[in-house]
Amino acid sequence: VANVAVGFDILGFAIHGVGDRVTVSKDSTGRGVLIESIGGIFVDLPTDPQRNTASAALLAMIEDRRLDHGFRISIEKGIPLGSGMGGSAASAVAAVVAANRLLAEPAPSEELLAYCMVGERAASGAAHADNVAPCLYGGLTAVVASDPPRVVQIPLPPGLLNVLVHPHLEVATRDARAALRHEVPLAEAVEQSMYLCGFLAGCFTGDAGLVGGSLVDLFAEPTRSRLIPGFAAARAAALERGALGLAISGSGPSVFAWATTEPAARQVEAAVRQVFDKHALASDSWVGPINHQGAVVEPAGR
Amino acid sequence: VANVAVGFDILGFAIHGVGDRVTVSKDSTGRGVLIESIGGIFVDLPTDPQRNTASAALLAMIEDRRLDHGFRISIEKGIPLGSGMGGSAASAVAAVVAANRLLAEPAPSEELLAYCMVGERAASGAAHADNVAPCLYGGLTAVVASDPPRVVQIPLPPGLLNVLVHPHLEVATRDARAALRHEVPLAEAVEQSMYLCGFLAGCFTGDAGLVGGSLVDLFAEPTRSRLIPGFAAARAAALERGALGLAISGSGPSVFAWATTEPAARQVEAAVRQVFDKHALASDSWVGPINHQGAVVEPAGR
Repeated sequence: VANVAVGFDILGFAIHGVGDRVTVSKDSTGRGVLIESIGGIFVDLPTDPQRNTASAALLAMIEDRRLDHGFRISIEKGIPLGSGMGGSAASAVAAVVAANRLLAEPAPSEELLAYCMVGERAASGAAHADNVAPCLYGGLTAVVASDPPRVVQIPLPPGLLNVLVHPHLEVATRDARAALRHEVPLAEAVEQSMYLCGFLAGCFTGDAGLVGGSLVDLFAEPTRSRLIPGFAAARAAALERGALGLAISGSGPSVFAWATTEPAARQVEAAVRQVFDKHALASDSWVGPINHQGAVVEPAGR
Repeated sequence: VANVAVGFDILGFAIHGVGDRVTVSKDSTGRGVLIESIGGIFVDLPTDPQRNTASAALLAMIEDRRLDHGFRISIEKGIPLGSGMGGSAASAVAAVVAANRLLAEPAPSEELLAYCMVGERAASGAAHADNVAPCLYGGLTAVVASDPPRVVQIPLPPGLLNVLVHPHLEVATRDARAALRHEVPLAEAVEQSMYLCGFLAGCFTGDAGLVGGSLVDLFAEPTRSRLIPGFAAARAAALERGALGLAISGSGPSVFAWATTEPAARQVEAAVRQVFDKHALASDSWVGPINHQGAVVEPAGR
């Protein structure tokens, strides 16, 4: 979940229960990446190694680390494309973390981040770390420098639960980008800074109320929310059920809400899905704590 | 020192060694505020109680708390006007804190903040809390909500020393405001968010290096620094002497720099003043830790 209302292109967090799985093996026949299969919920992905995020990330790794071999990969998509759930980052991170485990000299995590960003660029044209960093490290992450990229962890109020709802409606990242203004009033940028400041102070001091009151997105939401039928009603319903706030996940159409108790989170989930139902949109949803683990390596064959 | 590079109109901190003193006594002859004298380094201030920041703040207090008396005040300015050092906020805060001590039922601090903001509006036309809050509470403060205003304290890396240099050159707040752009590119607003995020993460985790690397002002500095001869050279000199960063204090022309050791702070002070000297500008300077106390009441007659 990138952007997180107040941190356009800089904040992101990882969740449990949905993700991509990439199976990686060494290929001693060359220094390329062969995509052996793409499966799961979405199979219409580029198989050109330069354009697929997972293979593009691995090609960067092979080149940068001067590996004397390549990789074969199988991608199992669990994250729907065009959902605002960071699917391209997930595949790139999964591939890089798995491949790294196969290296005699594993790369440090900052370098893994750089490889993943190459993968992200292959998918979206821009090398943002806001999705890649939480997939790689887990938790709520902030990009605090861009060249070279630097990522820090932001703590979250204890017991925070995330509700992610994905209405079945595809919003292409490029359409979501096109919906953005090129300029914003300075007064609006300052007001957004105020909310970012409140959000971060709330995170660092464990003040869930301050975090909730600060979940305001002035940059992207006014235009992007128009691409999501029922968005305003979904937020109203979530707040009524006790959510701290609700905002667009990444470039949408998925939305996330935060709550502090399991019953509230479940009620928020039901209420938001009901709103999308009324707009004739089926949806999927995931409820749970923030994922502090990031990408994990599973034994082969699982 | 308001703005603090990354927090235009929201961040501010208090310093030691320079300030305004306001002497307040009850006036039982009415519910007005009589300015008995204005002294100190700058005496050409409005004595119309509605326009003077100290008396305007007290009039708001008298009205809101339904006091059955007024006040007589004497203002001793220590902070030069047009210096970017928050002088109008200082007088308002001093008056309100002193007057509050005279009340049978003192007002809570959030209400004092509101009165001070009325005073600030009398001076600048806008009711910002970025200068008022640190004068009132001390420390590094962030405005995280505007209606009603809410202020939080931001911790600072231990041992941080501030260097404030005031070149003798008056920049009217309205000229400094006029130097601002009305709109900023979204990409620039996002980059500024990144620096704010790094600054706050550095403050909360005690990472002085991250704080320093994040002291970047994309909103105001590009245009306002043109009003400060030698600004770029002053920063270069400060960084060369070990400063974490240097930026404009408030709307300028004063500049502040942060350092982590006393010798570095002294060298930064000397280097920055030398640059202003070269531009034929005399200057004053103050070096010391952040003031965590805010406005204090002194016994009468001191």
